[in-house]
Amino acid sequence: MDIETLRSRHPDHWKLACAIRTLTLDAVAAANSGHSGMPMGMADVATVLFGRHLKFDPTAPNWPDRDRFILSAGHGSMLLYALLHLTGYADMTLDQIKAFRQWGAITAGHPEFGHAGGIETTTGPLGQGIANAVGFAIAEESLRARYGAKVMNHHTYVIAGDGCLMEGVSHEAIGLAGKLELSRLIVLWDNNGITIDGKVSISDMTDQKARFQAAGWDVFECDGHDPEDIDRALVKAKKSARPSMIACKTHIALGSSAQDTSKGHGALTDAKLIADTKAAYGWPYGPFEVPADVREGWVAIGARGAAARAEWEARLAAVPAARKTEIERMFSGEVPAKLGAAIRKLKKAAADEAPKLATRSASEKVLAAVNPILPETIGGSADLTGSNNTKTADLGVFTPEDRKGRYVYYGIREHGMAAAMNGMALHGGVRPYGGTFMCFTDYARPAMRLSALMGIPVVYVMTHDSIGLGEDGPTHQPVEHLAISRATPNTWVFRPADLTEVAEAWEIALTSQQTPSVLALSRQNLVAVRKTYSSANLTARGAYVLAESEAPRKAILIATGSEVEIAIKAKAALEADGIGTRVVSMPCMELFAEQDEAYRKRVLPAGPVRVGIEAGVRQGWDRWLLGERARPGKADFVGMSTFGASAPYDRLYKEFGITAEATVEKVKALL
Amino acid sequence: MDIETLRSRHPDHWKLACAIRTLTLDAVAAANSGHSGMPMGMADVATVLFGRHLKFDPTAPNWPDRDRFILSAGHGSMLLYALLHLTGYADMTLDQIKAFRQWGAITAGHPEFGHAGGIETTTGPLGQGIANAVGFAIAEESLRARYGAKVMNHHTYVIAGDGCLMEGVSHEAIGLAGKLELSRLIVLWDNNGITIDGKVSISDMTDQKARFQAAGWDVFECDGHDPEDIDRALVKAKKSARPSMIACKTHIALGSSAQDTSKGHGALTDAKLIADTKAAYGWPYGPFEVPADVREGWVAIGARGAAARAEWEARLAAVPAARKTEIERMFSGEVPAKLGAAIRKLKKAAADEAPKLATRSASEKVLAAVNPILPETIGGSADLTGSNNTKTADLGVFTPEDRKGRYVYYGIREHGMAAAMNGMALHGGVRPYGGTFMCFTDYARPAMRLSALMGIPVVYVMTHDSIGLGEDGPTHQPVEHLAISRATPNTWVFRPADLTEVAEAWEIALTSQQTPSVLALSRQNLVAVRKTYSSANLTARGAYVLAESEAPRKAILIATGSEVEIAIKAKAALEADGIGTRVVSMPCMELFAEQDEAYRKRVLPAGPVRVGIEAGVRQGWDRWLLGERARPGKADFVGMSTFGASAPYDRLYKEFGITAEATVEKVKALL
Repeated sequence: MDIETLRSRHPDHWKLACAIRTLTLDAVAAANSGHSGMPMGMADVATVLFGRHLKFDPTAPNWPDRDRFILSAGHGSMLLYALLHLTGYADMTLDQIKAFRQWGAITAGHPEFGHAGGIETTTGPLGQGIANAVGFAIAEESLRARYGAKVMNHHTYVIAGDGCLMEGVSHEAIGLAGKLELSRLIVLWDNNGITIDGKVSISDMTDQKARFQAAGWDVFECDGHDPEDIDRALVKAKKSARPSMIACKTHIALGSSAQDTSKGHGALTDAKLIADTKAAYGWPYGPFEVPADVREGWVAIGARGAAARAEWEARLAAVPAARKTEIERMFSGEVPAKLGAAIRKLKKAAADEAPKLATRSASEKVLAAVNPILPETIGGSADLTGSNNTKTADLGVFTPEDRKGRYVYYGIREHGMAAAMNGMALHGGVRPYGGTFMCFTDYARPAMRLSALMGIPVVYVMTHDSIGLGEDGPTHQPVEHLAISRATPNTWVFRPADLTEVAEAWEIALTSQQTPSVLALSRQNLVAVRKTYSSANLTARGAYVLAESEAPRKAILIATGSEVEIAIKAKAALEADGIGTRVVSMPCMELFAEQDEAYRKRVLPAGPVRVGIEAGVRQGWDRWLLGERARPGKADFVGMSTFGASAPYDRLYKEFGITAEATVEKVKALL
Repeated sequence: MDIETLRSRHPDHWKLACAIRTLTLDAVAAANSGHSGMPMGMADVATVLFGRHLKFDPTAPNWPDRDRFILSAGHGSMLLYALLHLTGYADMTLDQIKAFRQWGAITAGHPEFGHAGGIETTTGPLGQGIANAVGFAIAEESLRARYGAKVMNHHTYVIAGDGCLMEGVSHEAIGLAGKLELSRLIVLWDNNGITIDGKVSISDMTDQKARFQAAGWDVFECDGHDPEDIDRALVKAKKSARPSMIACKTHIALGSSAQDTSKGHGALTDAKLIADTKAAYGWPYGPFEVPADVREGWVAIGARGAAARAEWEARLAAVPAARKTEIERMFSGEVPAKLGAAIRKLKKAAADEAPKLATRSASEKVLAAVNPILPETIGGSADLTGSNNTKTADLGVFTPEDRKGRYVYYGIREHGMAAAMNGMALHGGVRPYGGTFMCFTDYARPAMRLSALMGIPVVYVMTHDSIGLGEDGPTHQPVEHLAISRATPNTWVFRPADLTEVAEAWEIALTSQQTPSVLALSRQNLVAVRKTYSSANLTARGAYVLAESEAPRKAILIATGSEVEIAIKAKAALEADGIGTRVVSMPCMELFAEQDEAYRKRVLPAGPVRVGIEAGVRQGWDRWLLGERARPGKADFVGMSTFGASAPYDRLYKEFGITAEATVEKVKALL
């Protein structure tokens, strides 16, 4: 539909949509950067979606049963900001729109979760939003099945561009959604045929409709500028029993001289272009000006959802008190008080029994205790269930037939799993954890970074956390992955040494509100190292004195995870030679770094030589070995400096020199 | 086709395939680990492929015009090892098969490039092989177009499993191959319906055939146990004008009690199961025993390609000498001598003109000088051509219509691009480089790690390397990514400060034979800091004294890339206060770490306080700040400890305190 036809046939719609378009043009011009073309192209679709379908209430941005709107094509952020502003989200003022992309504004270059109400997730890295959406839809299905449609009953809408659909993660997301028959998930594809480098066809000839159908989706089409056609497609999609994709044929940068070009993808800042475009729109208003009738139209749209929200609140009020309390607790992110008791019980048993087991098995024991008392957990694995030890007996499996199951078979989709977990955590009411081999942190990285950036407490269960994986060889042996996660801001990397530390790490991870956790867990069996029960969570201090020196203190061994038992063996040998040796277990460097100087000094006093032991690269260790009151030239490290190899794990430890003997030797060389 | 029918109809084929199956069973049993089921399931397909189609010569594993065989489902490594052993690759002895997955053996858990002839790429992380294959096929098409079918004319065959096809990178690979119409690429899908967690259908319902067709592939099917049907499909696929996928219906762990189960995916080590399976095969031989007639059959297959190779050598000998020399040079990985002169010329001009420009623009200048004299370069970008500055005027674009073009529009496929570049580098004869925003290192990580693990000199052009990216905000601003790449063994991370250092970094990257390079390049303009021409490549030392102190030396500022000019400003301010300050530019930490102690000591002598400056996290810096003769407590760092934000870049530098003023303050506080 061309502009003239659209204006004449749907004058009210046209003006509503033009408000989005012109706010975009003005904000991008003011910022002298940004992306004009996408909001200009998708304004009609968004207007119909918000105007007639989306269930939302700007006065209650966090209403749990709202529909979720996800702008996967995050570079078109002005589309979202304009919608939030026009429909009346209090924080999205016109001043914020005018401060687009400026320091301190909530209107960042790409939508940032937490900046403003109505921003459901951080997008910009392409494909993440559509993959998050799968998690949003899983959370909704799960809660609806378990708590009833009266309290949970909504849709997840996504606007995705060609870039989102070209990214690999979209394949994982689409496949998972198709298998799980997530019928409340509706993707609106901005089919404009343009990317930064030019026409989509210079790099891709994929038949997207056939592709989505192959993955088990229903596919619809519409003229993305015809409000009735858009509406018709949305009505159909909502009736589908499968996830739906609507191919919206649009013109990027509609109405400008850059329409249908890659120039239109970027920042249109030329004054004449903007003036000409507004003229073509029949929009005689000044910059950032929205006439009163158009404002009123948008405010009315913003007011549409108030009744639905009131009804929902009435329904929630009618839910039996205990159930209502549970739902509210789950959405608050607070854990039940009994979690602490369950963890302490596990720790007591661990101190009594001192079991020798892999920390991945220890993790399973913790989950077996935790899952029955935390109905919010949703577990899963990227096709390594038996290896990651992520499935406990009570969970059931989340399938189209059983929506109450709380375990997801994610398939061989580490990236899709991580992004879906982000979506679940953002949706609220559920607390996701998922497993893969630690080496495949690499595959999940883009979504793991976003967990950290958004500040959401996703738990990554990363087993087979070193050359201890053994025969599978270097492609499967993490070496740099502890360093990678530790380098990432707002990420807790736990490498627990035994069942007690695993229980403590899980307790921290499950009570976290704003920080994701990476649990690095061993494949191989480990001896118990924490033999004395302590009700306090020592892992929460990040590092602590596990074994004090007997002879006068000459050395401090600092170790994590599977290498703590090596430190203990080395200590025994050193003490036998009269070299007093302290062993510090350091399950979480980030939490230790947060302790006050006095505590850090108690754990790492000046004087003794220091040797760190970890079956990974040294990067990240020097702060503890060379800094923090260390003596110059009196520190060393036992670990990896190359990739691993394929062999039984005990052989690998020996060949790579990660042994008590090597540790003793290094200490003696330093004394 | 069931075993009985297969045995009776194709007795010779059956025995050949059984040799693969039983060597697999025996090797996995001996190792007590590994994956039996895949080789047992795909033995028939592999036998037909090697027996009737694959162009190879075990006596010349690196013959440039051989067909490439890529086992994307790398866990089935015994399939490949058995084939290499049976067809007569000299290094793949029976002892190596017996030492499967043991220390020092070339028969690693997953195929490792460089371990043995015939292992074309390292696989195991799923999806990598099929994505590498796209690069192999691009290299072949490119060289065939430019040097003629007489010297380059072969196919790339891939065996991929369900896991490979579920991984997101497969989507990127398939889409790229479809667009580029890589008709010499043939993927054999091991359609066995089983993954580790159970049936494929528990996590995926994708119609793979429809999916490949949607991406522009031709799709064929066969009974993966019927040699005639397999052959028929291969004949057809070779005739197709598009990339082909053959869906091979197979039974995992064929003939064992674990057939068609997820148990069959893993290590079948039970003695009775093995005995029963061999009985079902009609294979009365001992462990690792291959009867003479079967050996002869395989040796004959191995001998098939000798004539083709001899003919190829004759054709190559007939190529005009200069051209032949160029081809041989390109396959050797040696660069032409004139590269050094071109780099020196650039450096001279840079010293004369001291241009102020972004290092990404500097990189483009270097490429403009280099590409015309290095016909082996193949450039590209993941849809950020204008931003990554990766395209030079002479390259042309590699398309189905113009195979001579040397620039690939990879589309929004960072991971697929990286994996394809690995394939190109492995193919030989070409030297790939490709660009994206540095933050999207995250997307490309799994393949970047494999560049390092395989030891292949891929060049990653990572622009927009810090908060200097500005308004796009924290999703697009790398903070931890320098640390991530530096944590990875065998990776050179270059962060050059100006055109001179960019030219030096490119020179090192382009002459590298076994190490990939990451070039971290600025979006923003930078002043020239190397004002004196030096013919020596100072970047090759990793770090060097850029500016000596004038007053007696009290401080050393160590900086990289865009922060070197901050260091120079800080030095000026400090010297004005009588504080003698040395500036060390450190474009490559890895190369500096390789220098001898004497050189490192000259650059970083004991005594002065030290401040590091880099707009990234501190991780990785402590070695230079706290170690290397540093004084305790006399070092600090100016950089990032959180994610970035959305604002103009100069504002961000100020807000995050990465300024000359902050540097001066820290130095003074330490003195």
